[in-house]
Formats: sequence, C-alpha cells, structure tokens
Amino acid sequence: MTFRLELKVRDYECDLQGIVNNGVYFNYLEHARHEFLHANNIDFAKLAADKINLVVVRSELDFKTSLKPGDEFYVEVIPTRLSKLKFGFRQRVIRKCDEKVAVEALVIGTSVNEKGRPFLPSEIDALFPIE
Amino acid sequence: MTFRLELKVRDYECDLQGIVNNGVYFNYLEHARHEFLHANNIDFAKLAADKINLVVVRSELDFKTSLKPGDEFYVEVIPTRLSKLKFGFRQRVIRKCDEKVAVEALVIGTSVNEKGRPFLPSEIDALFPIE
Amino acid sequence: MTFRLELKVRDYECDLQGIVNNGVYFNYLEHARHEFLHANNIDFAKLAADKINLVVVRSELDFKTSLKPGDEFYVEVIPTRLSKLKFGFRQRVIRKCDEKVAVEALVIGTSVNEKGRPFLPSEIDALFPIE
Amino acid sequence: MTFRLELKVRDYECDLQGIVNNGVYFNYLEHARHEFLHANNIDFAKLAADKINLVVVRSELDFKTSLKPGDEFYVEVIPTRLSKLKFGFRQRVIRKCDEKVAVEALVIGTSVNEKGRPFLPSEIDALFPIE
Repeated sequence: MTFRLELKVRDYECDLQGIVNNGVYFNYLEHARHEFLHANNIDFAKLAADKINLVVVRSELDFKTSLKPGDEFYVEVIPTRLSKLKFGFRQRVIRKCDEKVAVEALVIGTSVNEKGRPFLPSEIDALFPIE
Repeated sequence: MTFRLELKVRDYECDLQGIVNNGVYFNYLEHARHEFLHANNIDFAKLAADKINLVVVRSELDFKTSLKPGDEFYVEVIPTRLSKLKFGFRQRVIRKCDEKVAVEALVIGTSVNEKGRPFLPSEIDALFPIE
Repeated sequence: MTFRLELKVRDYECDLQGIVNNGVYFNYLEHARHEFLHANNIDFAKLAADKINLVVVRSELDFKTSLKPGDEFYVEVIPTRLSKLKFGFRQRVIRKCDEKVAVEALVIGTSVNEKGRPFLPSEIDALFPIE
Repeated sequence: MTFRLELKVRDYECDLQGIVNNGVYFNYLEHARHEFLHANNIDFAKLAADKINLVVVRSELDFKTSLKPGDEFYVEVIPTRLSKLKFGFRQRVIRKCDEKVAVEALVIGTSVNEKGRPFLPSEIDALFPIE
C-alpha cells in the first residue's frame, strides 16, 4: 500500500541557490504524512486539539536530486511498524518528468498524551500492523 | 572546537501543537552551519553567487525535547571530515534554561560546481581536516 | 479575466492559534501571482536568472476569515495597470466550502534590472494594458 | 515609546532572487510585535492557550529596500490606538549599516474570544491608550 500525494514546487520555497531549500522537503514529507493519515481517517489537527500529539522522534533524509522552480513531483508514503510504541514512514519525493528520486526518507514517530506519556490511539495501532 | 549560536523561538515557528514545528529545526541547524562557516570566512551566499554550491546529501535528526514559544536555546556545530569529498556537522539544539537537548543531528554535505560535479574549495578543505 | 488557483491548507502552515499564520497568506498570494504570470508565459524564476527582478513595492491585505487545517480554497488574481511603471494584482483568497473571503488584497509591483533601475519587460507591459 | 528588536537575515529566508522573500518581512514584523507585547507583559501564546486570540485584520506594507544575506537590521514597533476595538502597530524594518528603511508598515489588530466575538483584554486596553 503506497500512498501518493502530487505537488508542485512554489517559487518561495526556493532559496538563493535557486533550488528548493532542504528544510522545505521536511514540510513536503510532513504534509504527505498528514494527508496519508487523513486518507486513513486519522486527523492530526483534531488529535492535537484532543491533546494527543503525534510526534516525530527521528528523521533520516537522503538528498539525491534538487527540485527547481515549477517542478511537479509526488511524495510517496509507506507505513511500517517498528516496535510497540514506534511507527515509521518510508517516504520518497519523486520528480514527475523523469521519475528521479529527489529525497529518500525514513521518519519515525510515536504518540504521546497530554502528560507527554506514550499513548498510541487504536486507529494508529491498526494502521501500522505489527509484522 | 565547538561553535555556538544563540537563538530564541519565534511564535510563528510554532505549529498547531503549540511547539516548534519539526521542519523549523532544520532551519535552525542550517542557519547555525552558515554562521559557523561565516565565522571561518566561508560565505555560503557568495559561493552560491560564484556557482559553487554547498549541498546537504544526508541529514539525521533525533528529536528529544520540544521547544516552546519564547524558549531561548543555542545550536552547537562541530565540524567533522568524513571522506575526501564529504564533510559533516555534528549539531545539537540545546534549551538554555535547563541544558536539555532538543535535537541531536548529523548533517553531511559536499560541494559541487556549476556542472554539478564535486568540487571542494580549499577553504572548506582546510576547515574540515582529514583525520 | 480572473485567474484562479486551487490550493489546500497544509498543517505546518498553521500556527499555535490553530489557524493559518498571517504570513502564510503572503506565500499563497505570491504563488498565485507567479502561476498567473506563468499561465501568461512570464517565468519569474527565469527572469530572476536573467537579472530582471519583479518586485513588490506595496501590499495591502485585509484578513476577514481564518483558514483552518484541511480547508480547501482558491486564490483569485486580477491584473490591473496602475501607472507607466507600476502594475497591480487584485487578489482574494476564498474558502471553497462556503465561498467566504479569507483575505482580500492589493499587491503593487514593479520591475527592475540588474542595476535596480525600473525596467518593464514587454511581456509584462502587454499583460497589464494601460486603461 | 519606540520598541526595537535587533535581528539578522538568515540565508534560508532569502529566495531565488538572492534577497529576503517578501513574505518573510511579515514574519519579522509579527515576531517584533510579539516581543513588544511580551516586554509589556502580554503573552501571545498564553492568550492563545486561554482561547483569546489577537488577530491581524489589516496590514499595509511598503517595500523600499531589499535585505540581503547576512544583513543586520532592527524592527521598530510603535503602538497606536485606532478605535474602541482596534489597535495598530506602526512598524519599520531598518538596515543597521546605513539606517535605510527596508519596510514600512501599519498592522491593525483586534482581539477575539473563543466564539470569535470582539474581546479586548484589559492589558491590551492599557497598552494602547485611546488618544
């Protein structure tokens, strides 16, 4: 099950090197994860309002090709369960015109309640089956 | 040699969870790296204008504590040479009030010329001595 | 002639009030202007590479309704010529579900060459006919 | 009473034109307003947590000079009361090296409670005396 979100580079996301700033890929990846969760009936903003915070504990990003102004691309999301309390997202940012990988990432998250204690909502548990 | 840059959380850097958005740490880390380079007479913007682009090829970030609105913190930068063409930055984002680590990171970069070919300017070479 | 760009709020664009941060509308408006220009064969990034910079000299924004996470909206762009050297964009950000106006704006721009002198490319001149 | 906040351009705040992106000035201005409020014992984030939202209803920005990578600057904030329910901030972004004005702004705000109804906390009322 690979989730895919189509996006397009916005000029203000590019920096003085004329390419998408590295930090922006982080935004792309986050947005794609939230859309993936949403497509699976998990609402990040609603959870936050209910004081259940999905948080990233580690991210590994490999930058392979730079996106440029106007580039169309898509972000892939593949869920993967890592442990009882940790879930992961294997993600790739892929340029549409030539299917070149711009960024390859593993983002690891967990879920905490109002007191900062680990708390995995059942819908998260179900979305990331323990293999 | 540990370089240190003092900063303060800006409210607009916080997201709907009321904490600094994960992507923003990326900006903090980048800014600290550029200030570190600048303190060593390497000007990222000037290099970019001369068509020599310092680029990040990999980043690993561990998120340990969330910064909140108004938090004062500093970012550490420790240079480390990884190979002939790759240099690294060990970085930590540390909250000032209690010295708690917010983020621990390893960011790996290289340098390319106008044609995208590896090209390490001598000042970069000197700043990251091969051990 | 009203140009229209469809977008959707991304969670990271929302701040600790749980709504889209005011500064982000500025990004939405800019992106819509650049897409409008692009649809009319004017490439902001290419012009910048050719040292012709389209610059904003004044912006007036009225904030009327706050967009929230997940809101779908569109940005309207209506070109208007203000003087020999100044062109304007009347813009609105409109929430799709109920057609409520989130932001109403007038953004005034001009164009300068490498020396910072006013220089209006002929394609800009043609796109904003003097009434 | 002129409040002043000193800042420095960060490279990631610059866009493909090599200058600070227009939208970023909005961030600078907001940050300076919040620091001004904080210096007067008004905490934007705390108010938001208490469901009292200070909101911008209109902003007028005149862009006069572009800031570049590494530029040091300060943001001025002068409070001005506009009406029973509206308060304003006259703001200027000024480059330190030559005191040139980069941006001149008037930002008009109001305050609303949880139901979106106008509600001016007494500390705001006191900070913006009706002239």
